[in-house]
Amino acid sequence: MNTITAPLSSAEATLPARRPAAWHVDASQPVHFSVRIAHGLLEPANPLLAQQCGGTRHTPQRRLVVVDRNVDALYGEALRRYFDHWRIQATWQVLDIDESHKTLEHALVIVQAMERMGLLRRHETVVAIGGGVLTDLVGFACSLYRRGVPYLRVPTTLMGQIDAGIGIKTGVNQGGHKNRLGSYFAPAGVLIDPGFLASLDQRHLNNGVAEIIKMALIDDEQLFHALENTVGHMAPGAWAAPGGPLAAVMERAINGMLAHLIPNLWEQELSRSVDFGHTFSPALELHAKPVLLHGEAVAVDMALSLGLATGRGYLSQDEGVRALRLIERCGLPIQNPVFNLALLQQALAQAVQHRDGQQRLPLPGPLGHCVFVNDLRPEELANALAWLTHYRASTERLSA
Amino acid sequence: MNTITAPLSSAEATLPARRPAAWHVDASQPVHFSVRIAHGLLEPANPLLAQQCGGTRHTPQRRLVVVDRNVDALYGEALRRYFDHWRIQATWQVLDIDESHKTLEHALVIVQAMERMGLLRRHETVVAIGGGVLTDLVGFACSLYRRGVPYLRVPTTLMGQIDAGIGIKTGVNQGGHKNRLGSYFAPAGVLIDPGFLASLDQRHLNNGVAEIIKMALIDDEQLFHALENTVGHMAPGAWAAPGGPLAAVMERAINGMLAHLIPNLWEQELSRSVDFGHTFSPALELHAKPVLLHGEAVAVDMALSLGLATGRGYLSQDEGVRALRLIERCGLPIQNPVFNLALLQQALAQAVQHRDGQQRLPLPGPLGHCVFVNDLRPEELANALAWLTHYRASTERLSA
Repeated sequence: MNTITAPLSSAEATLPARRPAAWHVDASQPVHFSVRIAHGLLEPANPLLAQQCGGTRHTPQRRLVVVDRNVDALYGEALRRYFDHWRIQATWQVLDIDESHKTLEHALVIVQAMERMGLLRRHETVVAIGGGVLTDLVGFACSLYRRGVPYLRVPTTLMGQIDAGIGIKTGVNQGGHKNRLGSYFAPAGVLIDPGFLASLDQRHLNNGVAEIIKMALIDDEQLFHALENTVGHMAPGAWAAPGGPLAAVMERAINGMLAHLIPNLWEQELSRSVDFGHTFSPALELHAKPVLLHGEAVAVDMALSLGLATGRGYLSQDEGVRALRLIERCGLPIQNPVFNLALLQQALAQAVQHRDGQQRLPLPGPLGHCVFVNDLRPEELANALAWLTHYRASTERLSA
Repeated sequence: MNTITAPLSSAEATLPARRPAAWHVDASQPVHFSVRIAHGLLEPANPLLAQQCGGTRHTPQRRLVVVDRNVDALYGEALRRYFDHWRIQATWQVLDIDESHKTLEHALVIVQAMERMGLLRRHETVVAIGGGVLTDLVGFACSLYRRGVPYLRVPTTLMGQIDAGIGIKTGVNQGGHKNRLGSYFAPAGVLIDPGFLASLDQRHLNNGVAEIIKMALIDDEQLFHALENTVGHMAPGAWAAPGGPLAAVMERAINGMLAHLIPNLWEQELSRSVDFGHTFSPALELHAKPVLLHGEAVAVDMALSLGLATGRGYLSQDEGVRALRLIERCGLPIQNPVFNLALLQQALAQAVQHRDGQQRLPLPGPLGHCVFVNDLRPEELANALAWLTHYRASTERLSA
């Protein structure tokens, strides 16, 4: 509903002056899209992908398809066959994508591809197929080109499928800060085919598992148990299989994530439980050598935060140690040498800026629930680091 | 209202698999702001500006204030006095601004100023004081920084006060195209002080008048008459004076503009009567030598469009000539040497892309109303050019 609560009424030809005017704009922008799990997305007989990018009309259609180079190498042929089948004349833009490519310059490469193609503004939906960095980057470019052109997200990594690819946030890194520039820009749709996960390596799968552990710790105790039950069986093929226990884990994780994202799409509320593991990790992503994947940095942040939570008694020692063990069994790190007290305090100060002047630090407590903290003291950070070192020493003694 | 229409329900510890899931996101983003005409904005006793940027709390506040260099030269002292009075610690970012500075690079200068200051995300409203280019550029930077920080628009030119400064569109030029990148990003508020117009030169005032003529021709016959009645008395001081006939003209123009913008804030509807004069003018702004101001290019486009409208009988010859005469009497051009048939066709093709594949060409007819055309033929453009040349010849004969 849009309203002007102001005089829009008649005025005579002489337009007599009145007292200084004010107009109040009161409107709302509707957002609709769906997130679907869909196996066999690239099988020519499956119309879903063509439908979601508006390409099943009787007349041939043009679409810009932006793909990650790895995805192109593995699935390029299947993709081309699919679009041909549906009479979609695809313009291909293949990009080398990792975190270091998530920049304004690379967003402009996508803009130039739209420009060259002469992309129409409203019905030539851009298709983004790749990991979270690629879908974030394409979303960013699409949000800006002609003030917004529609785009479809087809995340191909576990991280993309359960976290980065399913919301409305877009972004690029800038000035040494992650996602310092970005937008909230809803996609036309999200299509999740777990089949893509069969070709992922174990490290990149574990990277996504970190975000599932996050959801479990702050939101879903049952999911935590399910992870404990499946942790020995997380090979690529197991993630890709329809109907198995990991399919249920994925669906549960997506469900929980969306339940948190949707009531707060534009982040009016800055105390976000899904920010658990994301307070100290940005600094780690920036400084760790060798470079960590996003989920690995989140895992180290979660481990520290478990120490903070047990230090305050939000979690029992048993729960804290169980959670640490789960993180480790998922092939994720719990410590990093650059994570010292000075860096942690600096990271917290940055988070405070991003959270409008307060810490709003999400901590788990009890297991499957979230508490927000605004009064964390430096000595608590030091104690949490010591707790981790102590845990590490005791597990090493056990295994020695 | 945000809803998830999907199973958020319980699942057991083993999380049995179900059929592939879909989640439907159905949300809306509310937008509220007001546009106010307010004389004496910089008088220390006037709390309005301080209130609108959230700076009348008891604790001192910090704000980033981005100003046009001309505005800073003329009003910098008054501005500093004002912010001091209200205990707002202002960080000043003074920018040289003209159309050639409306680029990503200049948006990044503003981003860097936010970064240096450590701007908080939600309550340190950025204040943009200057012409339409500056408010567009600041709006663009604010829409992207941390995915959006609040900003206040204080347009200081007639163009800004009745057109560019009062909507939610932001933008930068890219790849030789005007506003090719941008966003819809509502300001926290818009404050219009006509007092700023006292220091504008006549050419820049006329530049804004072009957009008022636009509103008159497609929307408001009474406004057209009011312009005819005031055209001899449009000196800077007359625009700045509260309560005079030009104050009524301004208010009427803003009212009409907002009545068109507000029901279509995100431009779901691409047939926009306020695009009258903006179909062919972008090419003219790009190619004319010497460079034209935006309103001057719009005036040339409007004159051509009057020829198109009279050619189709939407306007009578009398009405068309009266409108041309008004444009000329407002010190605005009606022809330009680069405006030949080839460039016009190229400009129309560009507009068709921007309007999702259709011409959607707004033409006046009858006076004060708008018709949309999708079937314009090249010979009509040639005839309209000839009509203008004929008009020019006949007026020159008369004045000879």
